[in-house]
Amino acid sequence: MILILKSGVSEDQVTHVLERVEALGFQAHLSRGTYRTIVGIIGDESQLTPESLSAIPGVSKVIPVLPPYKLASLEAHPEPSVIDVSGVKVGGGHLAMIAGPCSVEDPERMDRIAGLVRAAGANLFRGGAFKPRTSPYAFQGLGEEGLRILRDVGRKHQMPTVTEVTDPRNVELVAEYCDMLQVGARNMQNFVLLTEVGRTQRPVLLKRGMSATITDLLMSAEYVLSQGNPNVVLCERGVKGFDSATRNLFDVAAVPAVKTLSHLPIIVDPSHATGRPDLIPACAMAGLAAGADGVHIEVHDCPEEAKSDGPQALLPGQYAELMHQLRDLAHLLGKSISPLPGVAA
Amino acid sequence: MILILKSGVSEDQVTHVLERVEALGFQAHLSRGTYRTIVGIIGDESQLTPESLSAIPGVSKVIPVLPPYKLASLEAHPEPSVIDVSGVKVGGGHLAMIAGPCSVEDPERMDRIAGLVRAAGANLFRGGAFKPRTSPYAFQGLGEEGLRILRDVGRKHQMPTVTEVTDPRNVELVAEYCDMLQVGARNMQNFVLLTEVGRTQRPVLLKRGMSATITDLLMSAEYVLSQGNPNVVLCERGVKGFDSATRNLFDVAAVPAVKTLSHLPIIVDPSHATGRPDLIPACAMAGLAAGADGVHIEVHDCPEEAKSDGPQALLPGQYAELMHQLRDLAHLLGKSISPLPGVAA
Amino acid sequence: MILILKSGVSEDQVTHVLERVEALGFQAHLSRGTYRTIVGIIGDESQLTPESLSAIPGVSKVIPVLPPYKLASLEAHPEPSVIDVSGVKVGGGHLAMIAGPCSVEDPERMDRIAGLVRAAGANLFRGGAFKPRTSPYAFQGLGEEGLRILRDVGRKHQMPTVTEVTDPRNVELVAEYCDMLQVGARNMQNFVLLTEVGRTQRPVLLKRGMSATITDLLMSAEYVLSQGNPNVVLCERGVKGFDSATRNLFDVAAVPAVKTLSHLPIIVDPSHATGRPDLIPACAMAGLAAGADGVHIEVHDCPEEAKSDGPQALLPGQYAELMHQLRDLAHLLGKSISPLPGVAA
Amino acid sequence: MILILKSGVSEDQVTHVLERVEALGFQAHLSRGTYRTIVGIIGDESQLTPESLSAIPGVSKVIPVLPPYKLASLEAHPEPSVIDVSGVKVGGGHLAMIAGPCSVEDPERMDRIAGLVRAAGANLFRGGAFKPRTSPYAFQGLGEEGLRILRDVGRKHQMPTVTEVTDPRNVELVAEYCDMLQVGARNMQNFVLLTEVGRTQRPVLLKRGMSATITDLLMSAEYVLSQGNPNVVLCERGVKGFDSATRNLFDVAAVPAVKTLSHLPIIVDPSHATGRPDLIPACAMAGLAAGADGVHIEVHDCPEEAKSDGPQALLPGQYAELMHQLRDLAHLLGKSISPLPGVAA
Repeated sequence: MILILKSGVSEDQVTHVLERVEALGFQAHLSRGTYRTIVGIIGDESQLTPESLSAIPGVSKVIPVLPPYKLASLEAHPEPSVIDVSGVKVGGGHLAMIAGPCSVEDPERMDRIAGLVRAAGANLFRGGAFKPRTSPYAFQGLGEEGLRILRDVGRKHQMPTVTEVTDPRNVELVAEYCDMLQVGARNMQNFVLLTEVGRTQRPVLLKRGMSATITDLLMSAEYVLSQGNPNVVLCERGVKGFDSATRNLFDVAAVPAVKTLSHLPIIVDPSHATGRPDLIPACAMAGLAAGADGVHIEVHDCPEEAKSDGPQALLPGQYAELMHQLRDLAHLLGKSISPLPGVAA
Repeated sequence: MILILKSGVSEDQVTHVLERVEALGFQAHLSRGTYRTIVGIIGDESQLTPESLSAIPGVSKVIPVLPPYKLASLEAHPEPSVIDVSGVKVGGGHLAMIAGPCSVEDPERMDRIAGLVRAAGANLFRGGAFKPRTSPYAFQGLGEEGLRILRDVGRKHQMPTVTEVTDPRNVELVAEYCDMLQVGARNMQNFVLLTEVGRTQRPVLLKRGMSATITDLLMSAEYVLSQGNPNVVLCERGVKGFDSATRNLFDVAAVPAVKTLSHLPIIVDPSHATGRPDLIPACAMAGLAAGADGVHIEVHDCPEEAKSDGPQALLPGQYAELMHQLRDLAHLLGKSISPLPGVAA
Repeated sequence: MILILKSGVSEDQVTHVLERVEALGFQAHLSRGTYRTIVGIIGDESQLTPESLSAIPGVSKVIPVLPPYKLASLEAHPEPSVIDVSGVKVGGGHLAMIAGPCSVEDPERMDRIAGLVRAAGANLFRGGAFKPRTSPYAFQGLGEEGLRILRDVGRKHQMPTVTEVTDPRNVELVAEYCDMLQVGARNMQNFVLLTEVGRTQRPVLLKRGMSATITDLLMSAEYVLSQGNPNVVLCERGVKGFDSATRNLFDVAAVPAVKTLSHLPIIVDPSHATGRPDLIPACAMAGLAAGADGVHIEVHDCPEEAKSDGPQALLPGQYAELMHQLRDLAHLLGKSISPLPGVAA
Repeated sequence: MILILKSGVSEDQVTHVLERVEALGFQAHLSRGTYRTIVGIIGDESQLTPESLSAIPGVSKVIPVLPPYKLASLEAHPEPSVIDVSGVKVGGGHLAMIAGPCSVEDPERMDRIAGLVRAAGANLFRGGAFKPRTSPYAFQGLGEEGLRILRDVGRKHQMPTVTEVTDPRNVELVAEYCDMLQVGARNMQNFVLLTEVGRTQRPVLLKRGMSATITDLLMSAEYVLSQGNPNVVLCERGVKGFDSATRNLFDVAAVPAVKTLSHLPIIVDPSHATGRPDLIPACAMAGLAAGADGVHIEVHDCPEEAKSDGPQALLPGQYAELMHQLRDLAHLLGKSISPLPGVAA
C-alpha cells in the first residue's frame, strides 16, 4: 500500500506513521515530494486493511496496489475457469443458456416449459422454489415441493437445474435437489449465506447486487472460494440507475471488466436487467457480443398467469427465435453452447 | 390500481383486460380518453400485484394508488410510534443517541468507551459481535463472547445495548443478550432474517440498504411488523452515490419523506453515511434539524487500533462536543434525549 | 393526462380541480375508486404541463399518457429516419463509423490518422477544435485553425467530418467548415446551443448527458427538430455510475429503448462510456449487437502525446482489428457500413 | 503526482516512463515495492494532466496529490470568502436568504411576492427571465422585459436581485439589470458561459450540476475565478438519484465537504433538491444546520397559476413560518441573516 500524508503533516506524525507501519511488521519507504510526503509499505499487503492505516493521524489517503481478493483474481489463476454444472460446461468458450420461469409452478406447466426451452437450445433449467419477495404478502414460492418438481422435470429432460437459495439453513436441502445454487442480487453481501454455499461443492450462480461494484462482486465470490468451493459463475443483472425507462441499468461493460480481473465465468441476465421483454433480445445479444459466458432468461408460456415477475419473461416462441440469433452470434465469436450431458453435441 | 392501455390496443384486448380484472374478483371501470384507454380497478387493491396485471397483453402501465405496505403506513397508525428500548424511548419527540465502537473489543476498552459516551449523553450503547465484512479475510467479530462483553458493560453503565444480527440461526441468541437488534444495510432485503427478527419482540434497528428506495425500506419494515413485532426503528445511513468525496450519499430528505408515509421513528447514521469523521458533526446536526428521532455515531478512543472501521469513528472528546450542540438543537426543536432507565431526566 | 387526487380530498377541492381543468379548455372525466378519486383529462395533452396541474390543491399525482416530445416520437414518424451526412447515410441499416483523435492536432498527424481509420473502414472523421475541458488550465483546442485542418484532411480523404460546437456564437462558423455538428454530453441541456444548431440544416450528433434520462435526451432532440432541422443522430456515451472501474456506465439498453420510442438513429461511443481502451472493443461489439446505428471511437497513433483524452483512444492497429469484427457482426445483423461518398460500396 | 506502474512492467517500460517524466521537465523518484513499482513526480504538479501520463505504456494508475483547482482552494485562501451582493454579504457567518418565484411574472404579482418575502426576512429577490426548459414548447421566460420587472421590483423593495443567465450573448445585458448572475445546474459545465460570467464582476450563483462531483463543481468555479471574477457563491441543489420519492437527491454532506476544500460560500436550494413543498422546510433546516451560508427557496402566492415549477414553491405564509425557524437556528449557530442594504440590522 501507499500512504499519502496530509499536507502540513508534522515531523512527529511522520515518525509515528513509520513506527506504526513497522509495528505491524512491514517496512516503510519514505519519499518527500514537492507537495506531499508519501510512505510506501513493503511486505505482504494482504495482511493489512486500508481502514486501520487511514485512521493513523496525518494519513490523508491509503492506496492499495493489489486487489483485495486473491483466489478470484487472474493473478491466482491466469486461465479462464471452466465450471462443470453436472455435465454442462460454463466458461472458456462454453456457453450456459439458462432458461425457465421465475417461480416453480405446477408440474405440467414446468414440464411444458422445460420441453420448449430445451428444444430451443437451453442447457440449464431454472425456477425459484424459495422466492425473495419485496412484499411479505406476495407469493413466497413452493418450498421443498417446488424443489422436487424442478428436480423431476429437469431429470425428465436431462437438463441440470438452477434454483435460488435464500436461507443458510436450507443450503444442504437445496443442494440435494439441484445442480446449481443461485445467490440472488439482494443476498450478494449476505456473508452468512455465501459462507454456507462455499461449504458445499455445488456450482454457485452469484448475481451482482444492485449497488455492488465489480470489486464487491469479486469479494463476494472470494467468500465462496475461500470456503473451498471453486465453482462460481458470476452474473451481471443490472445495477440501480436513475432512469425508470428500464427496471435496472444493464452494465454490459462489467463483462469485459471482470475478465481483466478474474478467471471466473460471467453470464448476463437481461430479464432482470431491463424488466422489459421488448428489450431482452437486444440486451442478450449485447451481453454475448461483450464476451459473456452465457445468458439467463426467464421464459413463461403465459406471463399474465405467472406467479411472479410475469412481465419480464419471454414467451417460448420469442425465446426460440432469440436463441437462433444467439447461436449464430456465438458461432461468429468462436464459442458454442455446451451440449446437454448425455446428448451428442 | 389504474391500467393505462397501449395506444392502438385492439377491442379484443380491451375485452380481455376487462375479463381478466373481473376474473380476479374486481370491478373494472373503463374510460376512453383522447389518446389512451384507461381501466380503473375497483376493490381491495392489496389483493393485487402490479406485475401480474402488467403482463396482460395491451396493458402499457400499471399505476398503484395505495402504498404496498400497510402496517408501516401512516394510514394504519396516524400518530408517530414511540418504541421502547428497555426503558429508552425512541420517536414522538424522544431522541435515541446511539454510540459505541464499530466492533465489540476487549472489556476494558468497552468499559472505558461506554463511560465516556454515557457521560456525553448517549442513551444506547452499540458494538458489533457479528460483523458483516466485505472481505472473508477481515476480522469477523468476537461472536458470543462479544455479546457477553457488550451486555456486561451495558449493564454496568445502565445503558441498553444495540448489536447487529446477521444470521437467522443466531437471532434468538442475540435477542437474549441485547436490547435492540440491528439489521444492517447489506441485509435490508434478507427477508429470511427479517422474518426471524419479526418473530421476537426485541426492538429492531433497520438500516436502509445502499440502493433501497424509501418504499423498499418500508416494505422491509413491513416484513418485521407482519410477523407480529411492532418495534421497528428505521435508520438512514447513506445510499450509493457517484462522488467518492464521501463513502455514501447521505439522503437527509429521506427523514421528512418517511414521516409523510409512516409512523415509524427514523434516526440517522452520519458515520456510515459519510465515512469521514470531519463531516460527521455537520451531518448529525443536519439529520436532527431534518426531524430525525436520533443519531447513531461510532466512537472509539483510538481509531488507529480499532478492529474495524476506525476512520469513521469520532474520538470521545469530539463526540462530547457534538452532543453539546445536538442537545441545544434538540431543545430548539422541542425534543429531548430520552433519559437512561432508572436515571432521573 | 390523469390526475390522481389525494386520499381525503374534500368535495370543494374536487370541484375546484374540475373547474380548473375546464378553465384550461379541457374536458374532465371523474372516476371515484375504492381508495382514490381520479380525473381523466380529455383533449390535446400537448397543451398542458404536468407541473401546473400538480400544483392544484388536492392533486396527488399527474400521469401524462403521451410522451412530451412529438417530432422525435415514433408516432410522428413510424419508419426509422435515415440521416445523410454529406453522402454518408446513418440509420435504417446504414452504419456510421466515426473515428479520429479527441482533439484536432497538427496537419501531418491528422492526415496520418485519417488515412489509417479510412483504410480500416471508418466513414466519418472526427476531431475537436473547441474542447469543453473541465479545467480552465487544460488545452482548449485549436479553434478556427483546427476547423481548417479538419476540413482539409477530410476533403483529402473524401471523409465527411464531425466536430463539436460549444458556443452558440460559433455555430455558423463551425457549420461552414464541417459536415456534422456534435453537441457534447455537458451541453445536452444547453437549450440556447440546441436552438442555434436547430437553425442550421447540418446533421447534429447529440450526445446523451451523464444524468439524462432517455426522455431528457429525446426532449433535447426535440429542441433541434422543432427549429426545423430534422437531421439528428443520438449518441449513448455512458451515464454517471457509482463504480469507478469504468469512467461512466455504458447504458447499452438505451439503444433498443430509444428504438421503441423514436425514429432517430442512435450510435454508441464506447470510448467515453468506458474511458478504458481495453474495454472499448467489447463495448463496441455490444452496442452494435444491441442495434446501434454506428460506433464512435477515438483513435490516436501515440496516446501519450495526445493533447487530450489520450488514454481512452485505440491505436490505429487496434481500431483496424476491431473494425474487422464489427464488419462481420454487421453482416450477421443484416446491416452495412455506409460507403464513403464517391466511393463504390 | 504518483504513477503506479502495472504489475509485470518491463525494464524498458520503466525506463521510458522515467524519460517521459523528465522530458516533461520533472524529476522522477523511483520506488520498487513488493508488488508494484511506483514513480513519484517532483515539481509543479499543476503543469501536468493525469490523462497524458496514464497513456504512457506500463502506467496503471495516476494519483494526483493536489486538487486540480487552485484559486478556489483553501490553500489559496484559507479564510472563508465573504461575497458582497450589492450590499448583502454572503459567507463567513453572513447568510443569504434568496426567495422569489421560479419565473418573473407580471409586475403586480412580483411586487406582491417581493413585499411578502422581504417581510419574512429574505434579503435577495429572485425570478427567472430566461428559463432553461426541458421542453421547447414550455414557457421560456419574459426575456428583457422580465429583467426590467425584476430590477424595478427589487429597487422598490431595496432588495438586490438574482436571475439566471443561459446565453453567453446575454451576459452583459443581464449584468446591467441584475445584482447576481445565476448559472443553472444544466449549465454548470457550459464552459463558454462560465468564461463570460467570469469576465464581469457581478457575483455569480453557481448551481451544482445533477451529476457533478464536488471536484467538478469547484473546477467550474475555477473557470469563473480564473477570468478575474472572485465573486462566486456555490449552491447545492440535489444530484441525480434512483428514488423517485424526491425530484433529486439533496446531498447535504456536500456543504461541509466543500468547506474542507474551498473558501467559497455555499448555499442550499431545497426547492429544486426535493421538488416537494412538504419537504422544503426540513431540508432548509438541515442545510443550515450542516453549515450552509444561505438558503434559496421558491415562493409563489398561487402555485397553480405559476408559469413554471409551481409545485415546488412555498406559499408566502409557509415561507414566513420557515424563516422564523431558520432565524432561530441561525442564532443558535452564531450566524445571522445579512441585513438589506440601507436598512439597519
